[in-house]
Amino acid sequence: MSDLLSEKTPIRARHIRPGQGQAVEVKTGQLLQIQTLQGKQVADFVAFTQDDTEEFLSTSVTRASNANIVPQRGMTLFSNRRQPMFEIVEDTVGRHDMLYACCDPVRYETLGAPGHANCREALAESMASYGIGYDRIPSPINWFMNVAILARGELEIREPLAEKNDYVVLRALKDVIAGVSACPQDLVPTNGSNPTDLTVRVYRDAPLPPSPVMEPPPAATAAAATTPVVAMKLTPRPATLQSTAEATVFRVGRVDSGEAT
Amino acid sequence: MSDLLSEKTPIRARHIRPGQGQAVEVKTGQLLQIQTLQGKQVADFVAFTQDDTEEFLSTSVTRASNANIVPQRGMTLFSNRRQPMFEIVEDTVGRHDMLYACCDPVRYETLGAPGHANCREALAESMASYGIGYDRIPSPINWFMNVAILARGELEIREPLAEKNDYVVLRALKDVIAGVSACPQDLVPTNGSNPTDLTVRVYRDAPLPPSPVMEPPPAATAAAATTPVVAMKLTPRPATLQSTAEATVFRVGRVDSGEAT
Repeated sequence: MSDLLSEKTPIRARHIRPGQGQAVEVKTGQLLQIQTLQGKQVADFVAFTQDDTEEFLSTSVTRASNANIVPQRGMTLFSNRRQPMFEIVEDTVGRHDMLYACCDPVRYETLGAPGHANCREALAESMASYGIGYDRIPSPINWFMNVAILARGELEIREPLAEKNDYVVLRALKDVIAGVSACPQDLVPTNGSNPTDLTVRVYRDAPLPPSPVMEPPPAATAAAATTPVVAMKLTPRPATLQSTAEATVFRVGRVDSGEAT
Repeated sequence: MSDLLSEKTPIRARHIRPGQGQAVEVKTGQLLQIQTLQGKQVADFVAFTQDDTEEFLSTSVTRASNANIVPQRGMTLFSNRRQPMFEIVEDTVGRHDMLYACCDPVRYETLGAPGHANCREALAESMASYGIGYDRIPSPINWFMNVAILARGELEIREPLAEKNDYVVLRALKDVIAGVSACPQDLVPTNGSNPTDLTVRVYRDAPLPPSPVMEPPPAATAAAATTPVVAMKLTPRPATLQSTAEATVFRVGRVDSGEAT
């Protein structure tokens, strides 16, 4: 598992089955880990400021403020008031989506499957005790969702690149309520046509351990000098959005996948 | 002006100066025209269902339902409940954005211009009488905004391709309240560094006139057979999202730009 989180016990943990949503409170500085247990599983993710739920994570402000369309390590996620809500501090996959809406009842009617479990209702149910209803579920970040953007703007949903135990870790920059659903979509390749479980864990903040970049090996390259504290290595070229073989196989390789706590 | 709207008098019209927002009611079937008078001017656009403003135009559902990232003629714009709100029936430019958030006070603070006029507050003011406040201004469609998407997901704001009197026409598929602001951004190329005025007009619905596609000239190609009712011609290859010379100069050519009513 993550070096950052090793030897730490989560203060809060949720197991999420496909079609379920879970709300979890995360205080400023705490770490939120979202992990796929079997791989190829999308986590729809929304978040609200804890003491004022009119403020929420905004994908459009996040795209604009980062001038980028792809959530990636080091990126700050912003609210609809353009305030920092999270930082992406770890990411073992490197391919996520912040363009797609949650799947919802109308989507499944269109696919000939009325009444199908869906992320929108799952998130709304998980947020009900905070007074947040269906209409107020914002556009999500879809962790592990693999959407190719083709040259004329066409979007194409592909199997996630996430493998068993892959995860992201977010550091909360405000006190928030996060909502996570395990996408139950089994009619298109969103979840590799086989939705599986997720876990969500909250850890107390901890100072980052001394970074290995302080003592790079003699052969270290410039790229190695920016290696994050968790033992990961980036493939030489980050993912492109094009429909190329390279883009479809890209993922961040982990040196040691270890066992999840 | 548009053949579709020629010989028609708008039932409602608004002139919008940079930094201003205007709300306008549009009934099902009516046509909403948004026009730039000098060109190179972005129109931030939001919309709410008239009798239930918890339903609003959603860029994420629109992207997902169309499996496309670029607003374009023929596309249906959807609400957060995945219901059709508008159809894009005319478009003399062919390059718009639905990725960026409205400019807002924090954005201008970051740019060293606190207190600058901004679209978010302008739209909120225009919607105040409908009980819609700042936090509920959704992610907009930014008509005429020219955002290049580079290979690694980077976004780059460029000068709009819209020229004098260019416009889009939307057919309302619900009774809606539309909000339009003329973006006052003069610190980056969003509006060609020189924000100018917009007009918004609402027309009664009219049956589409007989389409010229019914009698194509002998040399007509398959592409010509889909020519819309307004006299436009598409350049042979539609815009790509890449940072190519081709993409940056693409626009839909109008055969007759005429004079706006």
